[in-house]
Amino acid sequence: MTETPLLDSIKGIEDFRRIDRSAFDALAGEIRSFLVETVAHNGGHLASNLGVVELTLALHTAFSSPEDRLVFDVGHQTYVHKLITGRKAEFAALRKKDGVSGFPKRAESPHDAFDTGHASTSISAAIGMLRADAMLARERSVVAVVGDGALTGGLCFEALNDAGQSKLPLIVVLNDNDMSISHNVGAMSRHLSKIRASGSYQRFKSFIAESIKRIPKIGERVANRILRFKNKIKYLFLPNVLFEEMGFTYLGPVDGHDVGALVRVLNQAKGLRHPVVVHAITVKGKGYGLAEDDPEKFHGIGSFDPETGACGRGAGKSNSKTFAQALVALAEKDARIAAITAAMPSGTGLDAFAARFPTRFFDVGIAEEHAVTMAAGMAEAGAKPVVAIYSSFLQRAYDQIIHDVCLQNLPVVFAVDRAGLVGEDGETHHGVYDMSYLGNLPNMTVMAPSTQRELEEMLSFALGLGAPCALRYNRGSLRRAPLAQKIALGEWETLAPPAQVTLIAAGRMVETALAACAGLPIGVVSARFIKPLDHKTLDAVRETSKLVVTLEDGVVEGGLGTAVRAYYDGSPRVVALGIPEAPVPHATIAEQDEMCGITPEQVRRRVLRALEELL
Amino acid sequence: MTETPLLDSIKGIEDFRRIDRSAFDALAGEIRSFLVETVAHNGGHLASNLGVVELTLALHTAFSSPEDRLVFDVGHQTYVHKLITGRKAEFAALRKKDGVSGFPKRAESPHDAFDTGHASTSISAAIGMLRADAMLARERSVVAVVGDGALTGGLCFEALNDAGQSKLPLIVVLNDNDMSISHNVGAMSRHLSKIRASGSYQRFKSFIAESIKRIPKIGERVANRILRFKNKIKYLFLPNVLFEEMGFTYLGPVDGHDVGALVRVLNQAKGLRHPVVVHAITVKGKGYGLAEDDPEKFHGIGSFDPETGACGRGAGKSNSKTFAQALVALAEKDARIAAITAAMPSGTGLDAFAARFPTRFFDVGIAEEHAVTMAAGMAEAGAKPVVAIYSSFLQRAYDQIIHDVCLQNLPVVFAVDRAGLVGEDGETHHGVYDMSYLGNLPNMTVMAPSTQRELEEMLSFALGLGAPCALRYNRGSLRRAPLAQKIALGEWETLAPPAQVTLIAAGRMVETALAACAGLPIGVVSARFIKPLDHKTLDAVRETSKLVVTLEDGVVEGGLGTAVRAYYDGSPRVVALGIPEAPVPHATIAEQDEMCGITPEQVRRRVLRALEELL
Repeated sequence: MTETPLLDSIKGIEDFRRIDRSAFDALAGEIRSFLVETVAHNGGHLASNLGVVELTLALHTAFSSPEDRLVFDVGHQTYVHKLITGRKAEFAALRKKDGVSGFPKRAESPHDAFDTGHASTSISAAIGMLRADAMLARERSVVAVVGDGALTGGLCFEALNDAGQSKLPLIVVLNDNDMSISHNVGAMSRHLSKIRASGSYQRFKSFIAESIKRIPKIGERVANRILRFKNKIKYLFLPNVLFEEMGFTYLGPVDGHDVGALVRVLNQAKGLRHPVVVHAITVKGKGYGLAEDDPEKFHGIGSFDPETGACGRGAGKSNSKTFAQALVALAEKDARIAAITAAMPSGTGLDAFAARFPTRFFDVGIAEEHAVTMAAGMAEAGAKPVVAIYSSFLQRAYDQIIHDVCLQNLPVVFAVDRAGLVGEDGETHHGVYDMSYLGNLPNMTVMAPSTQRELEEMLSFALGLGAPCALRYNRGSLRRAPLAQKIALGEWETLAPPAQVTLIAAGRMVETALAACAGLPIGVVSARFIKPLDHKTLDAVRETSKLVVTLEDGVVEGGLGTAVRAYYDGSPRVVALGIPEAPVPHATIAEQDEMCGITPEQVRRRVLRALEELL
Repeated sequence: MTETPLLDSIKGIEDFRRIDRSAFDALAGEIRSFLVETVAHNGGHLASNLGVVELTLALHTAFSSPEDRLVFDVGHQTYVHKLITGRKAEFAALRKKDGVSGFPKRAESPHDAFDTGHASTSISAAIGMLRADAMLARERSVVAVVGDGALTGGLCFEALNDAGQSKLPLIVVLNDNDMSISHNVGAMSRHLSKIRASGSYQRFKSFIAESIKRIPKIGERVANRILRFKNKIKYLFLPNVLFEEMGFTYLGPVDGHDVGALVRVLNQAKGLRHPVVVHAITVKGKGYGLAEDDPEKFHGIGSFDPETGACGRGAGKSNSKTFAQALVALAEKDARIAAITAAMPSGTGLDAFAARFPTRFFDVGIAEEHAVTMAAGMAEAGAKPVVAIYSSFLQRAYDQIIHDVCLQNLPVVFAVDRAGLVGEDGETHHGVYDMSYLGNLPNMTVMAPSTQRELEEMLSFALGLGAPCALRYNRGSLRRAPLAQKIALGEWETLAPPAQVTLIAAGRMVETALAACAGLPIGVVSARFIKPLDHKTLDAVRETSKLVVTLEDGVVEGGLGTAVRAYYDGSPRVVALGIPEAPVPHATIAEQDEMCGITPEQVRRRVLRALEELL
């Protein structure tokens, strides 16, 4: 590891405060080396953290955390914040079980003001804190640090709209790197680009300000006239109007890698005590050439070689890739098929679709609600939209799924990626509710492929269904196996004939079930459909089995186990294995399986115990 | 009834098209009389429909529905649209069982392009239709008609942001009456007020346009210079920048009660074939003095006297009022208590709180997501926020409830009003999912008061809990009864001792259960807590009962019945009564209860059958 003496000296925020500003360049260099080496080893979010090194130093210089509150939107860019609030020693276990989280966690440090993970929440949370401050007669600074990508989320707009007229001393630091995870889309992005382009604006504005200052004694009338003129000039010269129209004072743009400039403007913002946007321009991946050149690759990454950027190979073809290839193949034959993503063209695999069918591919930005309602509109008009969104992010569009898709019975296909446990990203990113929140909606079909081949076939099936349909599949790869039985609505697959004990598993858990039961006289059923249930197979199992064990990578309450238990109503008895209610912390997926009691070994033990009990 | 010969002549859109424009004033008058008389008799949405009479006539003049698509946001302002597409005869049964719906329904007419009910969906849906059109090489106009209130919803912003850069021929008609249901809040509203204030802008713009036209042969360079100048002038004089910054051409403001002017500007918009906002200024309640003076009262209203505006008395003190009064009383003693609404200060009863504690009351506009995340921020900072949102609208904030409240275990209290069946508003407004979508979240407590007194006590209990907590209560009134047993976490109330058959009911259904079992040897339990379940009481019931019947006004799947059945796992058997999966159409709540099989008589018959079976 590169030596990092300055960084090593920081055991807490007070140590950081002792460091002279003249040493910030050196400190920034140390932090960057340390970040690259740590993430190369552990995986994690790299480019976004490299981009906010100076910004984070400036924030902790201008503000006094934890008294002042720094709310980081999305939160994957808080590594620097964690380092300078004294958590370097724990970075060896970054994103590992019992180690430091890759996201802010109030339980981890008083400096982590608000837990984030999903985008666009920071401004709302900050407004809430300020309103509590006003009620409790407390004065402090509350800062929301939000990326330009998160601004496409409607929640941000709702918050800006509320804050702009609130007169609250809210400071929004817009960390603008012209990237969310993929490149931004939409009008807001174009607006920010225009601001970036207008260097002249800054010079002009300070010229006006200076001019006013130079007039020794100006009557109020004259001053007002000048200010009115300045206001008009603003509209002439610069495009910060969007923020100012919303009631914010706009400061910037400022070089997000110039700590001195940042501290100055942040102090200015602090003094205003009303809503202000500080617009900082940063470079994602800054200081690490490989990440600057390909920030999307280095956004969230597994372990890699820091010299070459070469990644370790994944454990086979990902489900995302399988899905996307299958969709491209289907779209070749049906011009009505379209694909929609919410800022995740690469994560969902849809970049392949975008390359092949650019006019049938829609990246709406971080805007899951819009993605789903727009898909409903497309379906109403005769297209066949496939919306690919991670399970935990699809929670954002719950009402749109009910109100715009299911109640109208419109044929929208949901590709619910990252369903189940997701590993290192932890609590906020698990897709453990989808079976329950989709499982009781009218007209909805919910499927869970257990092999890559099934994923392909189910996608084709879903597109032919003519009704709302969701496929949920896990992060990583499903097992490879030939398709032994055609996909048909509500039909499960029996992999080992029902016995005294029968295991009914869904999705990724089918592989676990097969491993757990190897060599044992136990039935194994793949619950291909979470909704509707396969009553015929359930009845057949009832004929033979004294005990049914269900196995799912979702919360049991409201999920497959609950549905099967409700169907049987006691005969046979049901043991439901799956994810417990309490949030599962970050770790590897295998470790998380173990925390939940659903590794093959744990399931095997449970099943053996059941067999013994039946004797 | 007032005679309405012109309106009567319209049996379909082709009849409307035959009416000469010179007769539109008379037609508008007839429509207004008919609307006032019909809604006075049946109840419904009045003020918003009176406000869009001319706008609707203009839309159907400029566009050819159903080939062109008119998507009405929220949808409660579609009465005029329904009348002139030939549905007058069915208005006698407006909002009644088997009658015409108060909202657009694709199943009702090909002229109803998209089912709406919740706010802010129209622009997304329209974009989807246009994208399908592009894929399927179809050319037509798609118009989203959206109120200024709905613009505060993040979904609208996500859609505007996407549309602005899409170059799609989207026409957004902004129906601006400076009201959503209550007065608008936020920066967007202020922005629109500024536009309305700038009459000079229109004159100036046409002057410039005329000037250019008058120049006989202008070189490109000159023309460009003038256009650039016009652009600058725009920033000087008028505040339509927000829309134009987002990539829309802005047309307006136009008098929304001048059919001629509206038709001209709509035709202009139709010709542009790129994103355009038509800004129409309307008066909510137009033409009916009582409604113009108090549009909020006449927004959604029961039957009333058209002469005086006097409403029929409700059936006792509403739960909303009980909730609000209790909250005010609690807030008198605890300065940390705050109340939050999303554009429903009157509907939730919180206007009383706002009057008493204006600095602790926050109306964030139609922005449920922001309401919840802001509440999380307030709770983190030591306040005690109570978020009052109707059950079906709270679906909008599902992810925020999980991600910002429950995962962080922040003490936000949710007052889930309009839980269960809501009657005349129908499918989109039922609050039938809350028990399932809240019932499996970490750290969450879910309560269902069955009396007004319990509602008060549970609110107090929730505020003392120090963790996320939801109270769900129905539209209308709960029964009045003294509190026989203190509220304690997870403790149910036994109203009649467990017997061979025991009924476990929640919320409003407890009254039904008591009526159903009157005089019968049947146990009755009030499931005050949906989460956590009361295992002690459940075990006591198991001791005595051979059959348990659960009764809830929510979808059974994932609700109380499912949870009780899962707990018992067959012993005793459980019959779960509640709302079926298929959407329940508009009717009175009593009729809807009957459709679901949960009237007192139906439950009594079911219970008697159970008793017989047990003999």
